[in-house]
Amino acid sequence: MKYEVTVSDDFWNRYRKLVKQEMIPYQWAVLNDAIKINIERERNDASIPNEKSHAIENFKIAAKRAEGRHYGWVFQDSDVYKWLEAVAYSLRYAWDEELKKTADEVVDLIGQAQEEDGYLNTYFSIMEPDRKYKRLKESHELYCAGHFIEAATAYHLATGSARALEIAKKLADHICRTFGDKEGQIRGVDGHEEIEIALMRLYHLTGCREYMETASFFLNERGRDPSFFREQTVDDDGNPVIGGLDSFPLKYFQMHRPVPEQDTAEGHAVRLVYMSTALADLAATSGDERLADTCRKIWRNIVDKRMYITGGIGSTVIGEAFTLDYDLPNDTMYCETCASVGLMFFARQMLRIDANAEYADVMERALYNTVLSGMALDGKHFFYVNPLEVVPKKSMDDPGKSHVKPVRPQWLGCACCPPNLARLIASLDKYIYTVRDEEILVNLFIGSELQCEDTEGTFVIRQEGNYPKSGNLLFKISNNGQAARTLKIRVPSWANGYTAAIDCESLSTKPVNGYLCFEIAPGEHAVELNLDIAPKRWYSNPKVSENIGKVAVSRGPFIYCAEGVDNGEDLHCLRLPKDAALSYEWQEDLLNGVGVISANGKRITGADTALYRAFDDTSITEQPLRMIPYYAWANRGTNEMRVWLNE
Amino acid sequence: MKYEVTVSDDFWNRYRKLVKQEMIPYQWAVLNDAIKINIERERNDASIPNEKSHAIENFKIAAKRAEGRHYGWVFQDSDVYKWLEAVAYSLRYAWDEELKKTADEVVDLIGQAQEEDGYLNTYFSIMEPDRKYKRLKESHELYCAGHFIEAATAYHLATGSARALEIAKKLADHICRTFGDKEGQIRGVDGHEEIEIALMRLYHLTGCREYMETASFFLNERGRDPSFFREQTVDDDGNPVIGGLDSFPLKYFQMHRPVPEQDTAEGHAVRLVYMSTALADLAATSGDERLADTCRKIWRNIVDKRMYITGGIGSTVIGEAFTLDYDLPNDTMYCETCASVGLMFFARQMLRIDANAEYADVMERALYNTVLSGMALDGKHFFYVNPLEVVPKKSMDDPGKSHVKPVRPQWLGCACCPPNLARLIASLDKYIYTVRDEEILVNLFIGSELQCEDTEGTFVIRQEGNYPKSGNLLFKISNNGQAARTLKIRVPSWANGYTAAIDCESLSTKPVNGYLCFEIAPGEHAVELNLDIAPKRWYSNPKVSENIGKVAVSRGPFIYCAEGVDNGEDLHCLRLPKDAALSYEWQEDLLNGVGVISANGKRITGADTALYRAFDDTSITEQPLRMIPYYAWANRGTNEMRVWLNE
Repeated sequence: MKYEVTVSDDFWNRYRKLVKQEMIPYQWAVLNDAIKINIERERNDASIPNEKSHAIENFKIAAKRAEGRHYGWVFQDSDVYKWLEAVAYSLRYAWDEELKKTADEVVDLIGQAQEEDGYLNTYFSIMEPDRKYKRLKESHELYCAGHFIEAATAYHLATGSARALEIAKKLADHICRTFGDKEGQIRGVDGHEEIEIALMRLYHLTGCREYMETASFFLNERGRDPSFFREQTVDDDGNPVIGGLDSFPLKYFQMHRPVPEQDTAEGHAVRLVYMSTALADLAATSGDERLADTCRKIWRNIVDKRMYITGGIGSTVIGEAFTLDYDLPNDTMYCETCASVGLMFFARQMLRIDANAEYADVMERALYNTVLSGMALDGKHFFYVNPLEVVPKKSMDDPGKSHVKPVRPQWLGCACCPPNLARLIASLDKYIYTVRDEEILVNLFIGSELQCEDTEGTFVIRQEGNYPKSGNLLFKISNNGQAARTLKIRVPSWANGYTAAIDCESLSTKPVNGYLCFEIAPGEHAVELNLDIAPKRWYSNPKVSENIGKVAVSRGPFIYCAEGVDNGEDLHCLRLPKDAALSYEWQEDLLNGVGVISANGKRITGADTALYRAFDDTSITEQPLRMIPYYAWANRGTNEMRVWLNE
Repeated sequence: MKYEVTVSDDFWNRYRKLVKQEMIPYQWAVLNDAIKINIERERNDASIPNEKSHAIENFKIAAKRAEGRHYGWVFQDSDVYKWLEAVAYSLRYAWDEELKKTADEVVDLIGQAQEEDGYLNTYFSIMEPDRKYKRLKESHELYCAGHFIEAATAYHLATGSARALEIAKKLADHICRTFGDKEGQIRGVDGHEEIEIALMRLYHLTGCREYMETASFFLNERGRDPSFFREQTVDDDGNPVIGGLDSFPLKYFQMHRPVPEQDTAEGHAVRLVYMSTALADLAATSGDERLADTCRKIWRNIVDKRMYITGGIGSTVIGEAFTLDYDLPNDTMYCETCASVGLMFFARQMLRIDANAEYADVMERALYNTVLSGMALDGKHFFYVNPLEVVPKKSMDDPGKSHVKPVRPQWLGCACCPPNLARLIASLDKYIYTVRDEEILVNLFIGSELQCEDTEGTFVIRQEGNYPKSGNLLFKISNNGQAARTLKIRVPSWANGYTAAIDCESLSTKPVNGYLCFEIAPGEHAVELNLDIAPKRWYSNPKVSENIGKVAVSRGPFIYCAEGVDNGEDLHCLRLPKDAALSYEWQEDLLNGVGVISANGKRITGADTALYRAFDDTSITEQPLRMIPYYAWANRGTNEMRVWLNE
């Protein structure tokens, strides 16, 4: 079925405009080193390059338009590719001839930087042409290639650019020739998954099976030969192109066992979700039930045991990685923005495998919390790490928390997150619905129109409402075909209750796998879904030691947090008593408009004397608590923040 | 006043015997690589040498008795010196001709490894003779020299060895010639304080003022020129002798400001307390009130804001360092054994400055908890890091906790702690009393006899009792002089109450600065002190976020902990309710005899379903709790442990 989605949503149009009007021009300036900004290191690590971006200049040097050396991470190219992909998506909802011209020039520049045989990577072309594909553990060559192929696919679809697709196919063909299990091919994988996602997308666009087959090769090869990276390192005894990876275990790269046998989420969180995204795409596309089952197991492990309530993943800065089940520290975690973006990718592909609203629940959780938290309201400051608990002076003086920044930097030495956010927000239309052969799923409540067309006729859904401010949703549906169609609308797992009606008649059936099922007969229909969106409390599984005795608050898809600016410092001394009512108020003038949750709380205070006392001489005073949605934190200067409050 | 202390204490004689019979022979075997053991790295860091000790072999190579390369840390020599110092102390209470012969041979070997000009360091003599004193930031040359001088001083006092003293003086003279602010001298300091302590000791032994003056030079020079290390590194562009120190701030070395202006405890915890020990010794010896005040400020900062209830210090593994006020995480801290040993050194010197029992309180807290916890009951397994909360699977799978070992290794790549423990325990007699000009302080309750003699006559205190099992203490006193003498006996700050009597007559005065004051007339007297030693609860200052809502339990000087073997796993789910009585029982057959504290506790259990739940569906079940003294933990296999329990 062919289909198209157009977004018309108050909440998201602000962000989509921000991408178009602020983020894309700002990031373009940064990539060209045309703006004076403070680039921060992600953490105290002197090896992180933070003098400039140099990303466009790297391409100019590789394209022989300029002279010089490569600067930045070995994967610096990908910043440009993700920017280009964001541009592609934005052009679909905000055509801009000038921007298209700039993007076309970037495509030309990339094409000029590409080598004769299709190879594309500015670091190796400029600095170490003899070491191509010899350090796959660190080199990110296929990772960067994947980001270009993704961008080119999107750009071709948005603008019809033949050149972008041509470069992408030349690159992909080169990779398909070079990698594989045949004589003369490299039987190995990249340390960072991404090419797999890209090759699947190129397959979906072109129908060329070789791309899917090479994606499948990479996925099945990973972890088959655990010594591959070690042997490559022995063969190539030069300096590592990224230092420090030697101390990381095979799990870091998802190389500890063959992918189809993996059943837990291990290692670097972004890599894991990128791998899982491609795997789920392959499983959904090929119908491979064994791979689908691997995806389900990895998913279950994340969602049941290794995910923060904000949809963040990655419990440690060391390797930006998963650790173990129920290990979810709130103040030292990683919760990288990109990892939650990747979790959305994964969830979206899982919805193609199973019509289970849990995937959409998690997609929404990640989107409205950790993903959005990744950027400031101005679209020009970004978090890499999205903590659930911050004490600024600890970030300053405890070296184990140097990655936990209390305010968003203007840019980062490793700038993977800012353009990832831009491309995600600009392509949000792809996440709202899942159009399956036999049914249409409504996953996200974003004002939009879905137009489907197949031989049966057209089918249109117009989604209205004022979500997430309100839980009252209206779906106006036109079935212009001859037969009824199945429409499934998600009831979020956070909803306290709901009422649903079709054509003013109450729906009597209960949700199945989280979806209310409607058989839409030919003609015009209206479905109403009213979600009880009142603020509520959340508790952790008691196996999460950090959250024992603590409570989190949400309203709709938003997890809330308390900030110092509203509640004073020492937030660990606050209590939200079990019986305190949560009251909600919309504040139009606060943080671009947010709903504030208030409650009669308490504060523990103690005599400022000895460190240890034989009597509990603390006293409890009344204190009104004030909470804001998590995504909006750190927009009012440096202060403390906390999601889980003592109850 | 001349004085001597002999120990006759049930609790400590076991340890003193252990040092003599197990630790000294075991460590000798390890230092000679004559025993097959598993040497563990302190944390996941491939640069830590852990194949062997090689410490004696290094001396043989430097002494030209063998051929080969140096192996181990650049400060490996200090393991031998601390062992020698422990031997010296042990010979005073357990003479052993064979052991003395071995030690004499070690002294000869060291003497042979010493260079003509007095320089002594096997690493530089063997490996890099041209880089002597050129990398003081990392080289530990003066640190090692200090440990030899300390050992030689002790060995000379214990055995009369002229050779040991001769080598030490030759080394000290060489250092005094080489370092200073005169023309041609190196105006700089070692990255790791220790030489300062040693030179003060050598001054006390020899009366040679030059040693004290050079100690004073090092203390006053530190932090005066913050660029000293950087400039040395520029001048000497070879590889660092210890990698990774470049990322540490000046605070790590206590170089951030001149020592007399420091008023907080910063940087590497062992370095800070070693520095403070020497500073307090210098202040007490010279009467420099400004330096004494610096010591008091640093002390206050440690004790009021940066010390664990176990007497552990150092809140982070990164730099094994202090972080900031009230930052006392229980599961990622460092709490190195050596740091608490050093805190005892510092406290002992402070008692020479001020007759304040708080110094003795902290000395006792460190001794009976973190120091003792540093070794297994068998004397052959050692902790470097002494956590307050351990979950073994987190130590395994969370790379941020790789330093938090759940059981004591047989030896460590950096083996500073095991011989430090041996020398501390073997010299415990030095900590029991402080003999000041005008008064005698009883600091620790360890069965012993103090014999003092001056022109006024002799004064003898015989301390009896069964501490810390019992709080009933008896002091039999003989004043054989003509005048009354002042005796001050500490009332521990942990005591719930006490009664005191002299010659069966109740004492009517209250403690002053924590000491009960007795004017002991000539003749025989008996002082009784009965401390209420019943188990009790402790609460943290609420500024310590980690301990909000939590309680710790103690009895006498012992802090208690709960272990998995007694209480099941998931100790974070336990609760010790406010109203639960703490009952105490001595168990002779458990852990070499310990008092066990029991209470009717609770356990939170929850349905093993979703990670986050909209309702608190946990339930509370009754569970008897069982706690043991902290020092005895991890002697029954790998299991969880926790000091602070939810209340």
